[in-house]
Amino acid sequence: MTELNQQTTYDDNNIFAKMLDGDIPYHKVYEDDKTLAFMDIMPQAEGHVLVIPKQKAVDLADLEPEYAAAVLMTSKKVMQAQRQVFEREGIIQMQLNGAQAGQTVFHYHVHLIPSSIHELGRHAVTQADNSDLADIAQKLAAVIDA
Amino acid sequence: MTELNQQTTYDDNNIFAKMLDGDIPYHKVYEDDKTLAFMDIMPQAEGHVLVIPKQKAVDLADLEPEYAAAVLMTSKKVMQAQRQVFEREGIIQMQLNGAQAGQTVFHYHVHLIPSSIHELGRHAVTQADNSDLADIAQKLAAVIDA
Repeated sequence: MTELNQQTTYDDNNIFAKMLDGDIPYHKVYEDDKTLAFMDIMPQAEGHVLVIPKQKAVDLADLEPEYAAAVLMTSKKVMQAQRQVFEREGIIQMQLNGAQAGQTVFHYHVHLIPSSIHELGRHAVTQADNSDLADIAQKLAAVIDA
Repeated sequence: MTELNQQTTYDDNNIFAKMLDGDIPYHKVYEDDKTLAFMDIMPQAEGHVLVIPKQKAVDLADLEPEYAAAVLMTSKKVMQAQRQVFEREGIIQMQLNGAQAGQTVFHYHVHLIPSSIHELGRHAVTQADNSDLADIAQKLAAVIDA
């Protein structure tokens, strides 16, 4: 689909690839052999977590079945932790495919946002305080590990 | 989590359960033994498709691993068909957990919307023309079956 100017080639230097390689620090929420969950540093709501597969997938079109299952099962763990930590039931799960949809990092990633679809667009895009993110990551991780 | 007033019990009379039972008509895009994909009758953009598991799951918290994998693999098929039929790369994948997040039908469902996160909120919530939906469903199904 090169005619659509789609980015189909995985870039090994994307920011999530560097995180997986240990070259960039992040606030870890959960990790297993197939997935990694961490705090979004530009949260659309408090407690915004990203889940990525340990597979070089640009978007859903590349995702292999075993990583698809793993990503959703990790998302389930994270969502249940968010519900407990933030004492709310409403969690948006979102995943953007293609720059045209708003995807900015070209490694498949699932957003888990304690918010409402009716409020989502209103949040400003600002970087969160690192100590706040570290604190939230710790609380979520503690619930998942419990 | 009853203290959060969360709907955790699956209602066998929800609209998607009735569709799976064959009691309500819909515009089918794809079906296999674990999933069903059909046109959203209140599309947030042209070509808005929903994918549901054939499992009585209220939301992500209930979804079993085999259905998680199946739902994402069907979503992948649908997304690739949307890209081809609508000649665009940008597809939003979204799934709302809990009424507080905006979930209105309490059977787990994935939205696949040919749109951008920056435009999503602008779309009016109006029912689509049935013949238009039937036409789009047929085009998507043809691409998936090809």
